[in-house]
Amino acid sequence: MNILANFKSVTTLIFDVDGVLTNSQLLITERGELLRSMNTRDGYAIKRAIQVGLQVVIITGGNSKGVISRLKGLGVIDIYTNSHPKIDDYEELCSIYDLQKSKILYMGDDLPDYEVMQAVGLACCPANATPEIQAISQYVSPFNGGEGCVRDVIEKVLKLQNKWH
Amino acid sequence: MNILANFKSVTTLIFDVDGVLTNSQLLITERGELLRSMNTRDGYAIKRAIQVGLQVVIITGGNSKGVISRLKGLGVIDIYTNSHPKIDDYEELCSIYDLQKSKILYMGDDLPDYEVMQAVGLACCPANATPEIQAISQYVSPFNGGEGCVRDVIEKVLKLQNKWH
Amino acid sequence: MNILANFKSVTTLIFDVDGVLTNSQLLITERGELLRSMNTRDGYAIKRAIQVGLQVVIITGGNSKGVISRLKGLGVIDIYTNSHPKIDDYEELCSIYDLQKSKILYMGDDLPDYEVMQAVGLACCPANATPEIQAISQYVSPFNGGEGCVRDVIEKVLKLQNKWH
Amino acid sequence: MNILANFKSVTTLIFDVDGVLTNSQLLITERGELLRSMNTRDGYAIKRAIQVGLQVVIITGGNSKGVISRLKGLGVIDIYTNSHPKIDDYEELCSIYDLQKSKILYMGDDLPDYEVMQAVGLACCPANATPEIQAISQYVSPFNGGEGCVRDVIEKVLKLQNKWH
Repeated sequence: MNILANFKSVTTLIFDVDGVLTNSQLLITERGELLRSMNTRDGYAIKRAIQVGLQVVIITGGNSKGVISRLKGLGVIDIYTNSHPKIDDYEELCSIYDLQKSKILYMGDDLPDYEVMQAVGLACCPANATPEIQAISQYVSPFNGGEGCVRDVIEKVLKLQNKWH
Repeated sequence: MNILANFKSVTTLIFDVDGVLTNSQLLITERGELLRSMNTRDGYAIKRAIQVGLQVVIITGGNSKGVISRLKGLGVIDIYTNSHPKIDDYEELCSIYDLQKSKILYMGDDLPDYEVMQAVGLACCPANATPEIQAISQYVSPFNGGEGCVRDVIEKVLKLQNKWH
Repeated sequence: MNILANFKSVTTLIFDVDGVLTNSQLLITERGELLRSMNTRDGYAIKRAIQVGLQVVIITGGNSKGVISRLKGLGVIDIYTNSHPKIDDYEELCSIYDLQKSKILYMGDDLPDYEVMQAVGLACCPANATPEIQAISQYVSPFNGGEGCVRDVIEKVLKLQNKWH
Repeated sequence: MNILANFKSVTTLIFDVDGVLTNSQLLITERGELLRSMNTRDGYAIKRAIQVGLQVVIITGGNSKGVISRLKGLGVIDIYTNSHPKIDDYEELCSIYDLQKSKILYMGDDLPDYEVMQAVGLACCPANATPEIQAISQYVSPFNGGEGCVRDVIEKVLKLQNKWH
């Protein structure tokens, strides 16, 4: 019950990139360029969430220009890159927009996400998150990183708010 | 019985791209280029279908030049890109070729395919289509998107029409 | 017994590319370039087979410059590309080298391989070959295309001939 | 007991590239460029291991500039490429740094790793290593090559040394 109420009250969704929006793999060219893999269904859900008025935010320790360019194309405005530690950018975000932390969903998969996940209202992770992260998540998606876990939580929020279709 | 009769009478096959001809993944380069993954066996089946006189059509919300170039190389002529909503392009297609809707197979995997799938004679989807799409499909392939679901339905049509080998 | 005797007497190994040396996937760039995925362990086995005196041949319906370049780097000399139908190139190969067909192993995964597989001494296929091909194979590898099926049959041949280590 | 004591005393970790830091797949472009796939979680663990004072070394038979560039970016200093046979580079490494072999962990997946794995204190391999390598490993990770096996052994070492968090 409580968990569904949590999903229903979400107004801001924050996502990590590697291992959440991607499948943790980096494809490396001979020139050292790094390619990441994202899911078209996650993309569709992000676009839909923004269209119906939710705030979607990215906080990533990396700095992949390609991923950022795609996320901007989907309508995401608040993108924090090279974030170390993530909690600083998170606090800045909350302060700028005067956010209620109980209404924030964060999805992360690994230790750099740990601190922020303890500071939000609804901590979520993909099925293949590291054990430490699963242990502090209110919701563990049945989908792996890069394979639909983002779509999964967005759908949950929008359906409970009657904004999916 | 009915479903086999439906497959047998198909004269036009329409496919979505992302999640049907591809595995829903986008590989993203640092310059923001998007790479998609297609299956060589699906390609073989599309070529064969066209050789024996069936019409193969693509209706996609995206606009991947690489995918379009490959599909043209396989012999596909009718390719609708940037299709929003898809039903408009579908109606245009039916009108141009004066198609009988009962003889059209459409394979899609996600919500943008919903409306067209309710307008065709034989609605099909990959094994990993979203639940809403599976619910309105007459046939759910045992193969996932990008992993042979297109080959699967083409083989069914051609075998029932004695045109496979 | 018979199958092991067949493996032991092999002197020439012929491999298809798509679905055998690769996983049937084509990664497509926006410019229409096609990228294929090969397995480093298959590569190691091909190199080893050539080092100990076996003949390794490629017969492919495609024409991937990258794959050919890698195979040449591994020591493969006889590479037939754009092969339609494959049986013609196979007969030419047998004639040039005066090969005994009973000592030839062929591994294929799909219908264009059908005819040649019926003409060799030992027809093999990956675990995920199409049903028609599995039906005419003397040996179905437990490994999928691009995931070690080539290594599997080479290891079998070399171990039975005491040439693996 | 013994195996945990072995993990606890490790001061140097040596990793193979193909099949250990990568998933054994090579993605091949039309120009013959080879792309390899690495895991971001492995990368995080390597960085962490170096930060807390462990020595991380690469010995690879290949020579992928992209992989080397990424590994250098993570802080790895000792990288042996084009290593044939690997035992020579291993002996050189031990001699340069005056290493105690009992405190060295090596993770490999295939025959070129065989000799070195018999010369170290703790021989490890991914879940999908070849049978010969699994047979001589003190520890077989539950993770495949390129899918977290490196993270797995680094975590084990650092947790036992109270250096993980």
